[in-house]
Amino acid sequence: MSPRAPKLGRGVALVGAGMSRFGAFPDKTSRDLFVEAFHAMVKSVDKGIETGDIQALYVGNFSSDLFEGQGHIAPIVADWVGLVPKPATRVEDACSSGGVALREGIIAIASGIYDIVLVGGTEKMTNLPTERVTDTLAAASDTLYEGSCGFTFPGLYAAMATAYMAKYGASVEHFMKVGIKNHRNGALNPKAQFNKSIRDLMDSRIEKAKQKGEAVPDWRNEIDFLKDSKANPIVAWPMRLFDCSPITDGAACALLVAEDIAKDFCHDPIQILGTGQGSDHALHERQDLTTILAARTAAREAYDMAGVEPEDIAIAEVHDCFTIAELVAIEDLGFFKPGEAYKATEAGLTARDGSKPINTSGGLKSKGHPVGASGIGQVVEIWHQMRKEAGARQVQKDVNLALTHNVGATGGTCVVHIFGRR
Amino acid sequence: MSPRAPKLGRGVALVGAGMSRFGAFPDKTSRDLFVEAFHAMVKSVDKGIETGDIQALYVGNFSSDLFEGQGHIAPIVADWVGLVPKPATRVEDACSSGGVALREGIIAIASGIYDIVLVGGTEKMTNLPTERVTDTLAAASDTLYEGSCGFTFPGLYAAMATAYMAKYGASVEHFMKVGIKNHRNGALNPKAQFNKSIRDLMDSRIEKAKQKGEAVPDWRNEIDFLKDSKANPIVAWPMRLFDCSPITDGAACALLVAEDIAKDFCHDPIQILGTGQGSDHALHERQDLTTILAARTAAREAYDMAGVEPEDIAIAEVHDCFTIAELVAIEDLGFFKPGEAYKATEAGLTARDGSKPINTSGGLKSKGHPVGASGIGQVVEIWHQMRKEAGARQVQKDVNLALTHNVGATGGTCVVHIFGRR
Repeated sequence: MSPRAPKLGRGVALVGAGMSRFGAFPDKTSRDLFVEAFHAMVKSVDKGIETGDIQALYVGNFSSDLFEGQGHIAPIVADWVGLVPKPATRVEDACSSGGVALREGIIAIASGIYDIVLVGGTEKMTNLPTERVTDTLAAASDTLYEGSCGFTFPGLYAAMATAYMAKYGASVEHFMKVGIKNHRNGALNPKAQFNKSIRDLMDSRIEKAKQKGEAVPDWRNEIDFLKDSKANPIVAWPMRLFDCSPITDGAACALLVAEDIAKDFCHDPIQILGTGQGSDHALHERQDLTTILAARTAAREAYDMAGVEPEDIAIAEVHDCFTIAELVAIEDLGFFKPGEAYKATEAGLTARDGSKPINTSGGLKSKGHPVGASGIGQVVEIWHQMRKEAGARQVQKDVNLALTHNVGATGGTCVVHIFGRR
Repeated sequence: MSPRAPKLGRGVALVGAGMSRFGAFPDKTSRDLFVEAFHAMVKSVDKGIETGDIQALYVGNFSSDLFEGQGHIAPIVADWVGLVPKPATRVEDACSSGGVALREGIIAIASGIYDIVLVGGTEKMTNLPTERVTDTLAAASDTLYEGSCGFTFPGLYAAMATAYMAKYGASVEHFMKVGIKNHRNGALNPKAQFNKSIRDLMDSRIEKAKQKGEAVPDWRNEIDFLKDSKANPIVAWPMRLFDCSPITDGAACALLVAEDIAKDFCHDPIQILGTGQGSDHALHERQDLTTILAARTAAREAYDMAGVEPEDIAIAEVHDCFTIAELVAIEDLGFFKPGEAYKATEAGLTARDGSKPINTSGGLKSKGHPVGASGIGQVVEIWHQMRKEAGARQVQKDVNLALTHNVGATGGTCVVHIFGRR
C-alpha cells in the first residue's frame, strides 16, 4: 500500500490486560464499567503498576453520545481511574474503536513520546430499548445511503451472507456452526455474557417444557434447535437470532509499555509484532460483498510488519458480530482460501482443539459485544491464552503467535494486531 | 509530569493547510465540508500532493452522531476524498477534537509508521435548532453532575467568568473588549462566519434604524452597543450573546509529513516544534475556576519539547469559545500573569498590532466554531501568518514561532502546539 513496509520506531510490549464482566448492568454507566476493567488490568500486571506512572490514555468508544448522552468520555474515564492531568483521547471507528485505541497506544509509544500507555474501550448499550439500540448502531452505516433506506446491521450482514451463499454454496447450517462453536467456547468463559453452549440452552428448554408438562420439542441436535423459528427467530434472513451478537455493556483495558522496560512490569512480556489498519467504501458501494478490503489491507500490513504469514498464527480472536462475519474474517486474514472458511468450520478446524482455533473466548457472539470495548476484549483473551491462564478454555498448544481482528460497521474500518514472543 | 521530557522520535513538518468557509450551510453535510477543506489544503501545497501518496487520516469530530445521526465518520470522509483503503481514524475530545487529530497525526509520523498524514476536522451543527445545539453541546459536560443539573456551556463559562471577576476585579467590559478585538480581526478574514467588526454591526443597525425612521440608539461606541440588552442580550450573566462563539458548519485540513521529506512538498516548511496535551477534572470538581490544569499541563509539555518559553511566541490562536475563555487561555499559556490578561487586552497588547497578537483569524468568536474542526482551523491561520499570506490581517512582524491552544468542553482536555522555523 505504502512506498515502504510500515515499521514502528521502537518496540512495544503488552504487560497487562483485564475486562469487566460483559452483560447487561442496569446500574452501571460506561465509566463504572471502565473502572472495573481498569482494576482487572492492574491485578494482571505481574510486578504491579502505579496509576501515577501511566502517561496517557486512549479509549475506544462507539457512541456514549447516543447511548448515554455523554460526549467527551475520555477525560471522564481518565478522572475516574485517577489519571488527570494526563492526556486522554477517545478514538472512534464504530465497533473497531477498541482495536484502534490499541493501535494508537502502540503508535504513541513507538513515537517516543510516552513509555507507558493505558488503552481501553467501554460501551454501555442496554439502557436503550432493543429497537433503539439497533437504530443507534445503524448510525455506523453510511446513513445517507444505507441507514436512511431502512438498512440496519442485521440486514447489512444478511446481504453479505446471501452473497456468500450464492458465490460459494454455503448454507444456513454453516452459519449456525460458527455460533455453536463460539457458544461452546464462551460457556467456559466466566466473564462472557452468554456463557452457555447452544446444547446447554437447548437441553434447558427441553427440561423446562417437561417440567411445565408442555409438548417436548423434537430437537435431536443443536442444528434442529437453531432451525426452529420459535427458538431461533429470523432477524434478517439468513441471519437468525443466534447468528447475531448480543447487546452488551462492558469495558476492557490493556497496558502497553516500551519494550525496553517491559521486564519491569511483566515476567514474560508479550511483544506487539504487527499492527495494521485499513478502510473500505460503505457496503452499498462495493463490488463484492464476500470480502472486506479494509481487512485484507490491515492484515497485510500487520503480517509484513511482524514478518509472519497467516499459517504461522496459532490462535485468533476475530470480529464475529454476526456468524457470517467470522467466515469472511478468516478468509480475509488468509487462514483459509476464499470460499473455504465454511468448510473448515464444518470440519472443526476452527474449534478449540482444531488446527486454527478461532474465538476461544466465545467471540462477540457468546462473550458479548459492547461495541467500543470489543477490540480490547479480544486482547484480554490473547493475554490469557498466551500466559496459559485461560482455564477450562485454554488451548492445548503453546501460543507464541496470536492475532486480533476488529471490524468497524460492515468493514469501513478494520484493524489487525499480531502478538508474539520470540 | 513524566519522568523525562517528552520527545518525538523524528521531526514532523506542516506543508499545507486549508479550510472551508465557516458559516451556516443548509445544503451541506460534514462530509461535503470536509471535501471543501481538503481541496483548499491541496491547493496550498507548494509542490502539490497526490491523494494516493497520503498514508493515513485522522479526523477530529465532536459528534456527527448527535448532530447528523452519523457515527463512524472517518472512513466516510476518507472515501469522499479518495483515501480508501488507507487507515482513517476519528478522534474525539469535544471541542479540542481537531487539535487532538493534529497531535495524533504528528505522533503517527514520529512513530515511523507513516511519512505523509492528513489531519482534519469537520462539524455540521446548524441543521438542529439552536436550543437543541445547546443541549447537544452540553453532552460534552459531565452529564451526571453538570448537564443533568441544567448546566449548559454558557452557564459553565459564566461560572468561570464570575469567578474571574471576583478574584481579579475584571468587569463585563473587559470580556467585551475580547470580542471587539476578535471581530475586528475576523472582519478581515474572508472565510470567517461573522466577518464584520462590532463597530460595523453597530453602524449598520444605526443606519437601519434611520432608514426605517425608528428611534436611533444612542450608542457612542462598541461598549455602549454591547451593554444594550436588546442589541446584545444576556445569555448567562455575565456572558452576553457577543461573548459567545456562534453555531457553525465547517471543516479544515492540514498536511503533515516527515521532516526529511518536507522540501519535496513545500518551499519553506513549518516545523512542529512542540505538542502537548492534558486533561482536567470536570468543572464541578475543581478548586479554582479561573485556570485550567489541562491547559497548563499541555503548554508546559509543548514548551519543553520546543525548548522555548511563552515570551518567545510571536502569535497564538487560542480557544475563545467564550470571551472569558481567551483571558483564561492567555494566562494558562504564560503570556500574562494570572489576573493580568484582562488588563493586557484593555491595553491592546493582544491586538493585531500589539506585542502578543491573539486570534488574528477572528478566533472562534468571529471566525466561527464548528467544534470538531476548530483546532485545525487554528492551524490554517498559523499557516497563513507564517507564510505572510494572511492578506489584510497579516501581522507586521516575522512570525517564526507560533502557537495553537485548543480546549475541549470546560477544559477536560487541552492540546497545545508550537510551530516554527529555525
